[in-house]
Amino acid sequence: MSVTAARGFLASGVAVGIKESGAPDLALVVNRGPSRAAAGVFTSNRVQAAPVRWSRRALADGRLSAVVLNSGGANACTGPGGAGDTRTMAEHTARQTDLAADEVAVCSTGLIGVRLPMDRVTAGIATAADQLSPEGGEDAAVAIKTTDSAHKTAVAAGDGWTVGGMAKGAGMLAPGLATMLVVLTTDADAGAEVLDAALREAVRTTFDRVDSDGCMSTNDTVLLLASGASGVVPDPTRFTAAVHAVCQDLARQLVADAEGASKEIEVAVVGAASEADAVEVGRSVARNNLLKCALHGEDPNWGRVLSAIGTTSAVFDPDLLDVAINGVWVCRDGAEGEPRDKVDLSDRRITVTVDLRSGDSRAVVWTNDLTAEYVHENSAYSS
Amino acid sequence: MSVTAARGFLASGVAVGIKESGAPDLALVVNRGPSRAAAGVFTSNRVQAAPVRWSRRALADGRLSAVVLNSGGANACTGPGGAGDTRTMAEHTARQTDLAADEVAVCSTGLIGVRLPMDRVTAGIATAADQLSPEGGEDAAVAIKTTDSAHKTAVAAGDGWTVGGMAKGAGMLAPGLATMLVVLTTDADAGAEVLDAALREAVRTTFDRVDSDGCMSTNDTVLLLASGASGVVPDPTRFTAAVHAVCQDLARQLVADAEGASKEIEVAVVGAASEADAVEVGRSVARNNLLKCALHGEDPNWGRVLSAIGTTSAVFDPDLLDVAINGVWVCRDGAEGEPRDKVDLSDRRITVTVDLRSGDSRAVVWTNDLTAEYVHENSAYSS
Repeated sequence: MSVTAARGFLASGVAVGIKESGAPDLALVVNRGPSRAAAGVFTSNRVQAAPVRWSRRALADGRLSAVVLNSGGANACTGPGGAGDTRTMAEHTARQTDLAADEVAVCSTGLIGVRLPMDRVTAGIATAADQLSPEGGEDAAVAIKTTDSAHKTAVAAGDGWTVGGMAKGAGMLAPGLATMLVVLTTDADAGAEVLDAALREAVRTTFDRVDSDGCMSTNDTVLLLASGASGVVPDPTRFTAAVHAVCQDLARQLVADAEGASKEIEVAVVGAASEADAVEVGRSVARNNLLKCALHGEDPNWGRVLSAIGTTSAVFDPDLLDVAINGVWVCRDGAEGEPRDKVDLSDRRITVTVDLRSGDSRAVVWTNDLTAEYVHENSAYSS
Repeated sequence: MSVTAARGFLASGVAVGIKESGAPDLALVVNRGPSRAAAGVFTSNRVQAAPVRWSRRALADGRLSAVVLNSGGANACTGPGGAGDTRTMAEHTARQTDLAADEVAVCSTGLIGVRLPMDRVTAGIATAADQLSPEGGEDAAVAIKTTDSAHKTAVAAGDGWTVGGMAKGAGMLAPGLATMLVVLTTDADAGAEVLDAALREAVRTTFDRVDSDGCMSTNDTVLLLASGASGVVPDPTRFTAAVHAVCQDLARQLVADAEGASKEIEVAVVGAASEADAVEVGRSVARNNLLKCALHGEDPNWGRVLSAIGTTSAVFDPDLLDVAINGVWVCRDGAEGEPRDKVDLSDRRITVTVDLRSGDSRAVVWTNDLTAEYVHENSAYSS
């Protein structure tokens, strides 16, 4: 399924030796058209990897014909040499697929600051091009894995059209390996503006609300390519809903697979004066290391939630804050509420609800617990 | 030495049964004058513990005669009942020491959201008052410990006057127990305005630059009390320098004793367009969990430094960033510099230097590594 669920797309995933492990590490996605419309969202980190800089330019005209992706190296902070490597990847891909290099987006993921083994990459692109197939979506999804324990794909069906996609990442903002990469495809006949509007709306409330460890990557990229092969012009509302559904599904898979995590935590903020307030409070709670440790230990430590809320600029009265953990209102009016013993934290999924009692807006942010395994994975990786 | 190094002060520290362990948990500091001038700095968290709210009001006139401190409970998020408990602590202290309650500051530290056992606290205040002594500074410093592995004191001598102090906290912004508490005393004859100016300048570049885990407490309090007992009016510059020296000493002790830490990390930002830029970058680097894990694993992962810099609004060009780890410039011009193998991270102290190459301003932020022990201590504490 994955990126080849929609008609008009070919994909492949191969092992070309970028990873020392010999695991698959290079993927191609090619749009056979008739349309080449595309949209993209990139990391807001000001230190951006060479492939991010390249893909942003390639997308400037709202068109993409192919994406080449590699795991095993982020090609970030690699200077002019790294920029040249990205250009070479686009050019080789274009040559192998009879396209122009400026129609090819490039995505890389892995360790920052290390150049790619370009002889293997260019040879690998030829192999990947040979293996392009309408059934290649799964192979592509496997080839972009880094610390992911499973490959991640999702599909949503519309009225005669389909949206499918693949993602890699162990928590969006948790990239020990620097990156969340997502490629979405559709055979709907939608122009670049419709794609862009749908993608931005979907990302805003899905990938942008995942905050696994507060660390923003240099490589995060989400692309949406449309082939128009269904011949159907989608209703914009239904199309946006489908893109949102696929993004939501993939985002939850990222949280579920975050590095070293033992809990998936949903922070739901309600009663906010504005959605911005709700998101600010949600992020602050989701990033609080002390709370994340407490929830790891199955300790419903609501004091740490209040402590995190207090660092924000959101509208609230400290003496009118309510907090529920897994539905038990352990904090009422900014003080002790129902007995903490009533909270059962044994399940993997935990919900923390904050009622700011200042309005009608709400937002949800997803995160994970902080574990010794997280420390181990992220202290052992590059050595 | 501690808070009784300066003349005119009595102190005591006793075990009154707030802590189940039976360890000392209540301290008194009394200023015998002739002056009662004082200054204070409090947490900027908007969720503030009852003792913080009380002490802020008590200090409004620039005078304090005593401080009562307890460990074993933060009295934060405890509602109107908790506010009443703080008032009772001040009133009992005032009665035992022939003072007015509004001259008594209150500091509490420990778990958030739990009421104090007030029968034990009030009985304990009487015991502590009985034991007040000009040699009681060490006992007071011991009685305010929570997860601190050692009590923390420091002293600086001026021209005929002395500044001394005590601190508790396992990293300023790392309070598993919600709090850094600091009480400084001096026998210099300085008015409230001089004290306030000296304290704010000292705190700004010491306690405010310690960022152990990015979590801001509901109880953080730094107080400076002057007895004037030396009869010497200090030179303001020398006085500020002495207060700064004591704060710096205590701040370093906090970092050295942060929960579960195995490394003390100094993030030095130079070449910044402004001090604010330097602090923003320093904090962002100091709060990056991925970097803190890498340094724990003695991995000079400079890519994570750049990733953290990129999330700030500071003035810099991503292609003109230099980063040194323990003096080795592993990143030059935003890309790989000297070989990472040259970096020796075996010592407990690590320095990360960031050169933004955008100006002449600089700042230092101190933090710790992120360890499995931090996770353990903070997931096990309140359960």
